[in-house]
Amino acid sequence: MGALHAGHLSLIRLAAQENDQVFVSIYVNPTQFGLNEDLDSYPKTWSQDITMLEELNGELKGRINTIFAPTTKTMYPTLPPDSSLPGTGSFVTITPLASLLEGKTRPVFFRGVATVCMKLFNICTPERVYFGQKDVQQTIIIKRMVKDFHLNTEVRVVGTERENDGLAMSSRNVYLGERRRRVGIVLYHALKAAEEAYVTGGKRTRDEILAQAWEVTNNTLMQQDLLSEHERVRFEVDYLSLSDPETLEEVQEVDEKVGAVLSGAIKMLPLEAVQEAEALGMGGDQGSVRLIDNIILRPVER
Amino acid sequence: MGALHAGHLSLIRLAAQENDQVFVSIYVNPTQFGLNEDLDSYPKTWSQDITMLEELNGELKGRINTIFAPTTKTMYPTLPPDSSLPGTGSFVTITPLASLLEGKTRPVFFRGVATVCMKLFNICTPERVYFGQKDVQQTIIIKRMVKDFHLNTEVRVVGTERENDGLAMSSRNVYLGERRRRVGIVLYHALKAAEEAYVTGGKRTRDEILAQAWEVTNNTLMQQDLLSEHERVRFEVDYLSLSDPETLEEVQEVDEKVGAVLSGAIKMLPLEAVQEAEALGMGGDQGSVRLIDNIILRPVER
Repeated sequence: MGALHAGHLSLIRLAAQENDQVFVSIYVNPTQFGLNEDLDSYPKTWSQDITMLEELNGELKGRINTIFAPTTKTMYPTLPPDSSLPGTGSFVTITPLASLLEGKTRPVFFRGVATVCMKLFNICTPERVYFGQKDVQQTIIIKRMVKDFHLNTEVRVVGTERENDGLAMSSRNVYLGERRRRVGIVLYHALKAAEEAYVTGGKRTRDEILAQAWEVTNNTLMQQDLLSEHERVRFEVDYLSLSDPETLEEVQEVDEKVGAVLSGAIKMLPLEAVQEAEALGMGGDQGSVRLIDNIILRPVER
Repeated sequence: MGALHAGHLSLIRLAAQENDQVFVSIYVNPTQFGLNEDLDSYPKTWSQDITMLEELNGELKGRINTIFAPTTKTMYPTLPPDSSLPGTGSFVTITPLASLLEGKTRPVFFRGVATVCMKLFNICTPERVYFGQKDVQQTIIIKRMVKDFHLNTEVRVVGTERENDGLAMSSRNVYLGERRRRVGIVLYHALKAAEEAYVTGGKRTRDEILAQAWEVTNNTLMQQDLLSEHERVRFEVDYLSLSDPETLEEVQEVDEKVGAVLSGAIKMLPLEAVQEAEALGMGGDQGSVRLIDNIILRPVER
């Protein structure tokens, strides 16, 4: 979807390592944005994206074969793209995977993702496709789509690129000014605490693992509550989840042979009051920003 | 779906004329049968099908490369096939085309058809795919799917094969005993009368064209009503339609440059009383049988 960052570049680098030719698609797909979501304001940084890709292509000795940036009429040739439910158009639906986790608050999101990916895969017929681990549910849904529709491609998942403090890179991070950016790391810290309970603490039950994550988010919420409007950051935890890596169903106890997906989403609320000369994000920190992150709990080898 | 008849063979013959290799799929796809439809009783004639294909392959000098008769676990590798709505699984939906005409009485039908065709196309990657004109809505939906999902295949539509009296060949015709078979031709006669109004009569409005078809079905219904239970055949007209060849929306007046699709469906009801030594269909004419047919009103060349 453009607004490229180091996470995208890591996908392209791995693709160039594993393949002779790399096809890069840049398309802000309207059908994956709900009617009240941020399609219109989604960051579009076309010339910056091209500059980054040209530099990368030099580094990769010209392996980037194509930058495919289609119009919406190309991608949706008959009916205009529709984000309503049930909506009109030709869609791929992956149920129930698409209605869990992110799908609960974004009911059309994965229908749009699966649909546009099916189109892109058919246009490019790639031997391998590259997705970032950060959107873990997307990777699982695309794998399911490839399997169920017998698509002849291999889904490769590339680890999440993070800022120095651990914040997962995301095109939406530009909306976070310094203050919200600093507190936004709470989600990663929460997931790390839960991971620690599994890996080091040997915990296996849902309650033991997720309790660690909730303690981090609750403590941060309480700390922020003590501050004034000019200093604090408000956020809501949408979910903290411990789920099966294939079905994304919530698990009560982690099967060591299977592992699990630790994931979460938080909504960073608009700043209530801005300080003089405060470093603000794009849009002045006036809109809510949803952050997601995840950590895979690997199966334990005995 | 097997239960091969001359209509299927005509598809294969044309495919062999236009291509070096022909891939034949035989699969009774569960997701296109509604929960109350005839999946379990759909005619399965495997050994007869194979004999017909072997004979045809001789005639075609070995052009049939593959007979693909997969298990349901192959076609639906993760979740079991689901015919309920909304249902679980990975589906292709084509809206609103799939909810018109046949879709009104069979709401899951075209979801199942599009889904299984997407899978088959991905497995076979055919240069051309062959469908019978008899299932006109199916041909329009598959064309839409190919266009919207950028599938690299050409959809070829082959004219309807008919019995001597004009009845469209269908695997379901085996359920018609002599009596229902004789009256079942009413649908074709109705469509022919409407076609005549367009082609010879120069009529262009919906009312003028469809009135001719309704006159035929109504007359037949009245004639049958005069007969005794041992002689008569009851049927219901599901729809008689005059629609746009691309959108399948009902048209009030035929645009000569575009033409139209004349189509209809009737439900042959079970016989009320059977005569001694009457020639009955499979199942003893005890179940309803839905018949469909259509005629394309071609654009007029001036």
